[in-house]
Amino acid sequence: MTATFIGVGVGPGDPELMTVKAWRTIEQADVISFIANKTGESQAKVIAVQALESTKKTRLEIPVCVPMVLDRHDINAVYDQAAKTIQKHLNEGKNVVFICEGDPLFFGSFAYLLERLESNNRCEVIPGISSVHAASSALQMPLTMLKESFSVVSGRHSSQQLEQALNNNDTVVIMKAGRARERILNALKATGRLADANYLEYIGRDNERIMTDVTQLTATEGPYFSLFVVIRSQRDRS
Amino acid sequence: MTATFIGVGVGPGDPELMTVKAWRTIEQADVISFIANKTGESQAKVIAVQALESTKKTRLEIPVCVPMVLDRHDINAVYDQAAKTIQKHLNEGKNVVFICEGDPLFFGSFAYLLERLESNNRCEVIPGISSVHAASSALQMPLTMLKESFSVVSGRHSSQQLEQALNNNDTVVIMKAGRARERILNALKATGRLADANYLEYIGRDNERIMTDVTQLTATEGPYFSLFVVIRSQRDRS
Repeated sequence: MTATFIGVGVGPGDPELMTVKAWRTIEQADVISFIANKTGESQAKVIAVQALESTKKTRLEIPVCVPMVLDRHDINAVYDQAAKTIQKHLNEGKNVVFICEGDPLFFGSFAYLLERLESNNRCEVIPGISSVHAASSALQMPLTMLKESFSVVSGRHSSQQLEQALNNNDTVVIMKAGRARERILNALKATGRLADANYLEYIGRDNERIMTDVTQLTATEGPYFSLFVVIRSQRDRS
Repeated sequence: MTATFIGVGVGPGDPELMTVKAWRTIEQADVISFIANKTGESQAKVIAVQALESTKKTRLEIPVCVPMVLDRHDINAVYDQAAKTIQKHLNEGKNVVFICEGDPLFFGSFAYLLERLESNNRCEVIPGISSVHAASSALQMPLTMLKESFSVVSGRHSSQQLEQALNNNDTVVIMKAGRARERILNALKATGRLADANYLEYIGRDNERIMTDVTQLTATEGPYFSLFVVIRSQRDRS
């Protein structure tokens, strides 16, 4: 029996938006790993808490504390070390379940562990509801219909790239909008798409906030878990 | 108590990739509705069969048979009639659960019923795993990392639109690739992205087929549930 490194998406926040497979896999896990902040807190673990506590199992935990710096060298050292620890458990025949918010392969840290472990190990990925789909469900607005094109960019992109995406696509989701809010609002204005834009924070959590009129939004820094969903207000449905 | 019209995504095919909330909502449903073919078969119902049969409940079913024609007038008449039937049950105080493959608001028919029913009824949407995320999980390849841009187009787009998306984005998913396979292969060749492309059919089902070398693919018509996932083979991970 070969041990497997399993990336599991736990979805956007509501524990019930975990898939049945994610729930079962987490319940059965002997070793779990997750991204944690300096004080050891993990959003993914909070979402998965009911699945983790549904059995009285004692689980080994591997928190991965990625520093909030932009220096890739330091960050890579953290992933190297985490991969080494995970490899040790895989070598002992134990499956390691890495839980991630949203979907594991959509803008997530799981990719950095997967690239370090995939050549020597059996790997598996269990998809999760990404914030893109959580957002359109919360808004109750179709993300795409018929011939519409759809693009995802992030606050890490340049103003020029944001404007290009807004000009060339019917629907645009702008992820990681926190620090880039002012630039995003300017790009929406420059491309004439302010009226098409919706803003969401902490979807499906107690502090969820949804604004369908983004002109009411101040050009200040927002939380990391915020995004814009830009959908044509007049759509071709024929 | 107001009756609710609920769109539920059942995911890409594996019943375990339904969310816990989707499963519970389907179990509790008194009335379910779905897209069906002429002979009454429904892919969404097949995926949800265990959830539907987990209780001995008798459920009322509203199949919506959308004709395989391009005439929007005929199609609209079908949605008008379905919305009327659903409205009748909502008026009687019964929740109506409309089950959809993948995610309800991503290229799906649920949008047409939602637009007909949303102004007069309480509505809710439960997101599902879309084929985009199912595909990247099956490939075990990150869809997006860091500053990469990501776009979704479909076989319904023109060759020019396909090429534009392929030229302007790091990752491109091309949905509904069946009839357009030859055009898609030509667009991949024209933009120099044949080597970046992967092809998937019936993800997560018994007849799943994954090809990471699309030059082996014949330029013939493929099934409706096929897609291309184009991801840079050399990625900037720094």
